[in-house]
Amino acid sequence: MKFIQADVLKQKPTDESKLGFGKIFTDYMFTMKYKVGQGWYDAQIEPHRPIAFDLATTVFHYAQGIFEGLKAFKNEKGEIRVFRPEENFKRMNRSAVRMCIPEIDEKLVLEGLFELLKIEKDWIPTSPGTALYIRPSIVATNVALGVHAGTEYLFFIILSPVGSYYAHGLAPTRLLVEDFYTRATVGGTGEAKCIANYAVSLRAGEEAAKKGFDQVLWLDANEKKYVEEVGSMNMFFVIDGEVITPMLTGSILPGITRKSCIELLKANGYKVSERKISIDEVIEAQAAGKLDEAFGTGTAAVISPVGMMEYKGRDYVVNNNEMGKITKWLYDTITGIQTGRLADTHNWVVKL
Amino acid sequence: MKFIQADVLKQKPTDESKLGFGKIFTDYMFTMKYKVGQGWYDAQIEPHRPIAFDLATTVFHYAQGIFEGLKAFKNEKGEIRVFRPEENFKRMNRSAVRMCIPEIDEKLVLEGLFELLKIEKDWIPTSPGTALYIRPSIVATNVALGVHAGTEYLFFIILSPVGSYYAHGLAPTRLLVEDFYTRATVGGTGEAKCIANYAVSLRAGEEAAKKGFDQVLWLDANEKKYVEEVGSMNMFFVIDGEVITPMLTGSILPGITRKSCIELLKANGYKVSERKISIDEVIEAQAAGKLDEAFGTGTAAVISPVGMMEYKGRDYVVNNNEMGKITKWLYDTITGIQTGRLADTHNWVVKL
Ligand SMILES: Cc1ncc(COP(=O)(O)O)c(C=O)c1O
Ligand SMILES: Cc1ncc(COP(=O)(O)O)c(C=O)c1O
Repeated sequence: MKFIQADVLKQKPTDESKLGFGKIFTDYMFTMKYKVGQGWYDAQIEPHRPIAFDLATTVFHYAQGIFEGLKAFKNEKGEIRVFRPEENFKRMNRSAVRMCIPEIDEKLVLEGLFELLKIEKDWIPTSPGTALYIRPSIVATNVALGVHAGTEYLFFIILSPVGSYYAHGLAPTRLLVEDFYTRATVGGTGEAKCIANYAVSLRAGEEAAKKGFDQVLWLDANEKKYVEEVGSMNMFFVIDGEVITPMLTGSILPGITRKSCIELLKANGYKVSERKISIDEVIEAQAAGKLDEAFGTGTAAVISPVGMMEYKGRDYVVNNNEMGKITKWLYDTITGIQTGRLADTHNWVVKL
Repeated sequence: MKFIQADVLKQKPTDESKLGFGKIFTDYMFTMKYKVGQGWYDAQIEPHRPIAFDLATTVFHYAQGIFEGLKAFKNEKGEIRVFRPEENFKRMNRSAVRMCIPEIDEKLVLEGLFELLKIEKDWIPTSPGTALYIRPSIVATNVALGVHAGTEYLFFIILSPVGSYYAHGLAPTRLLVEDFYTRATVGGTGEAKCIANYAVSLRAGEEAAKKGFDQVLWLDANEKKYVEEVGSMNMFFVIDGEVITPMLTGSILPGITRKSCIELLKANGYKVSERKISIDEVIEAQAAGKLDEAFGTGTAAVISPVGMMEYKGRDYVVNNNEMGKITKWLYDTITGIQTGRLADTHNWVVKL
């Protein structure tokens, strides 16, 4: 794999409590190009620096792009630990098919990622709650205005040392149940991690933020009845001892943290259901005192307790606005496995 | 307005029959920047050349971007004629609001466009069916991976001399009525001209093309029952003397060609209805011999006759696969007004 040396290296952040999310980037990135007829070529590690694009490039006009998000950790022993990276590149290839983007060689990009992480190991923060966030992406790079799938693409992996996703850390979040805007439909692109889905969700997110909410809780687009997911998290509810998460209907992103939680819960004897769950069922459970916990799962925030939900102008408090027992157990277990504090019972971690 | 001279000018295309659509670009572009707290600044005309972007730029990850499409014409008298440009910048501002993008000063960008067109007048082709296609766009340019509306933007106008949108020119098109994939929902971004909508539609378009169709005819996402629009055109049906086009429900792009057709038809005594029209109504009319014409309307193709539609595996031929009377009249009238062959009865053309 070709390596292009940077002339100067950046100053690394000195205060790990001020990293924020996706604001600081490391010195190097992995890139690879694609041309119809030629396939993927020129895999290399090069300095993370601006790249020149013609303004008629496909991605600027028709948003043909996909991405992934995963994390690497470093513990006191200096071990570099990556959480389930094969899952992300598998999902990336499923997103690629949906968005008419050529599939990548999962083994090759995993190697590229590991190589990059070894070079950038000093950028991996070590304080609790921090990680090196890994962002693989593919965008269409050919210059043309006809509405067609691109003929050229750029694959890249950039790295960002990050702190907690939410400014308030692990404090329970406030969700606005969205009953006007929609994010995705069955037959649409909801289950692909494509860049378009996030553009579509921006307005609802901004309006919710203005009203003081952390995130939007999406309902299904057709009936506005069934819970789907949150901006960047899948949802779980604990009702009367049953752990429920919306089933994957085609409009929900199949989260890797979601999958990990289901596997952990089942392995530890919990009753887990992947099924349709209506917002009415959630609210009735809350009224009957049976909504024990609600939480979101996602790479950025890992496990995020929900303290309050607003639906049609009424507030529904969950578990006294405190983090629940299962929520805390999942958070501790997953972060424990990620950092090596706990045994990697499910073989999820790649150690470099 | 600042002007930056190009060092060398490009070779202009010599054969206007081989322009294609959106493949060739002129020497100059109009650009303008935005920063939160500062507003829009640095409006200028500069050489159309690649611009450097960090790969962590918002548009690459969350597809926050909008665009427009309009045309300028040049006739034998050397007049430069632009078709309804104010309408495009009005629609751009409506798209901006929906996508959390700062609005532009419509007057300023119109001036920028006119200035640019005067500089690039020799690039405007004159053969019948050709035009200078104008692509104004806004993309989010700040470098950050949090899912939020951008804090910096780039507005730009690029120009491309174009021929017919369809390779087969004005020959009737073949549409595939899509009953699985969806494009947009009410509560989504269908009525905004945002780049995300086109990414979402790519897969259906590619599958249809492989089967030999020119475009997909979208149905509403909820019931898969009502006709919405085509990839880059609004739809019209002539049934039993009534000219019907789907009403604007929120999931359909409010086309400027659509609006122009409605205005022309009404001014000339036709009965025009903007209403819901189900695919079943269209098919029953066809079976009863009452589907006189079907056509699409859009800037790129202007008016495009539909010769055949396939729905659930069955073919429905329209008007013997020939261009209908009203279709032809609208095509002749609109292109006549655009090029100056006919009087500009509705005051649609800006002459430079
Ligand atoms: C829309 C959406 N849902 C759910 C998730 C959670 O997925 P994962 O656990 O793989 O990070 C994410 C974030 O990746 C997301 O963007
Ligand atoms: C989705 C869609 N529908 C309709 C149209 C037609 O709109 P207009 O007549 O303004 O070009 C376009 C093209 O601009 C489009 O992209």
